[in-house]
Amino acid sequence: MHVMIIGAAGMLGRKLAERLAVTGALGGRHIAGMTLTDIFEPAVPAGFRGQVDAFAADFADPQVSRTLAARRADVIYHLAAVVSGEAEQDFDKGYRVNLDATRFLLDAIRAVGREAPYRPRLVFTSSLAVFGAPFPERIGDSYFCTPQTSYGTQKAMCELLLEDYTRRGIVDGIGLRLPTICIRPGAPNKAASGFFSNILREPLAGREAILPVGEDVRHWFAGPRSAMGFLEHAGSIDLAPLGHRRVLNMPGLSATVGDELAALREVAGPQVMRLIRREPDPLISRIVAGWPSDFLPRRALDFGFRAETSFREIIEAHIADELGGTLP
Amino acid sequence: MHVMIIGAAGMLGRKLAERLAVTGALGGRHIAGMTLTDIFEPAVPAGFRGQVDAFAADFADPQVSRTLAARRADVIYHLAAVVSGEAEQDFDKGYRVNLDATRFLLDAIRAVGREAPYRPRLVFTSSLAVFGAPFPERIGDSYFCTPQTSYGTQKAMCELLLEDYTRRGIVDGIGLRLPTICIRPGAPNKAASGFFSNILREPLAGREAILPVGEDVRHWFAGPRSAMGFLEHAGSIDLAPLGHRRVLNMPGLSATVGDELAALREVAGPQVMRLIRREPDPLISRIVAGWPSDFLPRRALDFGFRAETSFREIIEAHIADELGGTLP
Repeated sequence: MHVMIIGAAGMLGRKLAERLAVTGALGGRHIAGMTLTDIFEPAVPAGFRGQVDAFAADFADPQVSRTLAARRADVIYHLAAVVSGEAEQDFDKGYRVNLDATRFLLDAIRAVGREAPYRPRLVFTSSLAVFGAPFPERIGDSYFCTPQTSYGTQKAMCELLLEDYTRRGIVDGIGLRLPTICIRPGAPNKAASGFFSNILREPLAGREAILPVGEDVRHWFAGPRSAMGFLEHAGSIDLAPLGHRRVLNMPGLSATVGDELAALREVAGPQVMRLIRREPDPLISRIVAGWPSDFLPRRALDFGFRAETSFREIIEAHIADELGGTLP
Repeated sequence: MHVMIIGAAGMLGRKLAERLAVTGALGGRHIAGMTLTDIFEPAVPAGFRGQVDAFAADFADPQVSRTLAARRADVIYHLAAVVSGEAEQDFDKGYRVNLDATRFLLDAIRAVGREAPYRPRLVFTSSLAVFGAPFPERIGDSYFCTPQTSYGTQKAMCELLLEDYTRRGIVDGIGLRLPTICIRPGAPNKAASGFFSNILREPLAGREAILPVGEDVRHWFAGPRSAMGFLEHAGSIDLAPLGHRRVLNMPGLSATVGDELAALREVAGPQVMRLIRREPDPLISRIVAGWPSDFLPRRALDFGFRAETSFREIIEAHIADELGGTLP
């Protein structure tokens, strides 16, 4: 089979390509080739025995979508997006990349399918940003989308497109609303959600981290291993039993900042706690208060999606996967 | 003030223009001018003392949106759409008219607002088609959108756009998810929902009507008077208390076909019942079974929207408004 990853230079795309390269299969089917694309040229993952085409391309250009669709990949992972902050700041770019480009891709697949039958599995990563406060204590599977950012609006619109194009038989689509991925590897970034990862990743590496909110702040998390599990599962299971409702709230771990810190202390010892610097930031506190913090993702669980059940598990996986198995 | 109706040749648009022409005001504010447009040239309503511009224009042409926005209407009623069946049959036309044209309008308003401040009230008519079965017994205000038609998909996408452009301060938007309007005046049409009106309107006029479903079929209704009330109310109330959540399920009457027929007998006498011809149609039964039949529209009620409470009331209003006050 042929797997395509659009957005292959991002954190999830890179990890997915590496994982598929190592396993060489998806859902038990041999992967003969991979197409990896992003706005920057994605790295070619090590250890893959099949053919890899990795190239930079502007996904918001309709001609690029036509080129991608013409490759007739069996599974397309569409992970490409302008992030929340940028989509809010650059109105036109957000709609062009996060909405129009998805539609270009769907229409390009439709056009290719009219030449000769083609109906790829399309795995689309959506976001908790499709939800807007106020929330019930736990968000159920049938809760409505009232995004409070343009990014969330664009994701919710793409979900609707995905379901309509699936209903029409153009793609076999599934949308995954991912929890906040934690511990996010790499350098601290300026995303408002960055501190959730920073306060674990940095102290684990012997570096200071700033905590801008109170310990009672609750949020919805999944580790990178779960994220990979979600993507592999979504790329391989039979989706017909989902019917028309092709967008799922992924399972996760509802935990407070206090829970994160308690797990950090448990795994790395009390001395590491000195690396947490408390610098309350009212702006970040206000932004975070508008995010959902707990879900009842029954359908996703029924369909076999699984997430971590404790921050200890998330931290231990990070140490194994990113720190070579030991603390410095 | 200046009121614009896009889709002014349709049933609701025509009635709204007639009503505003007679009252000459909206929410207590004098209407100095009206712009009426549709794909066919709308009729100029009688009795209006202000300026009326009525013209045919293709709303799916971005240049038309720019022309409309440049008029700087205070209130814009956007009622234009390709109907459900046509949007399902003609994929591209549905997306062009029902999605792209709305975005053209929003972007044209944004462009006009950059030249000099402009933030019109935008009243958008949405539909129960944003919902897809299976349903809870009564659909609450926070139930999710899983449309099962391209029409419903396009309406749900426009709702999201409306909320994002409102949040950005480009329009002061409100979306109304209308119940099935019954008794729909005019000739019987071929819409799958047509029989709900036909079985009352036709016998009341002394003509036969076909009933294709069982009497236990339940649906969600509002009369044309309520629809006018919704539109006037939405065009005039302060929307700020709605916050970001600008789309409301309109109130209605949950009733069965049996309830309709009982009210018909009550108002028009038992002899009229002979005009109902029962011709079961499995296709129509199947389509109707996928439609929502009952709601708990708390927010709309809290904001002062009101619908009829019995089919007797709906039938009597029809006799008064469409049949000159008496049965033939």
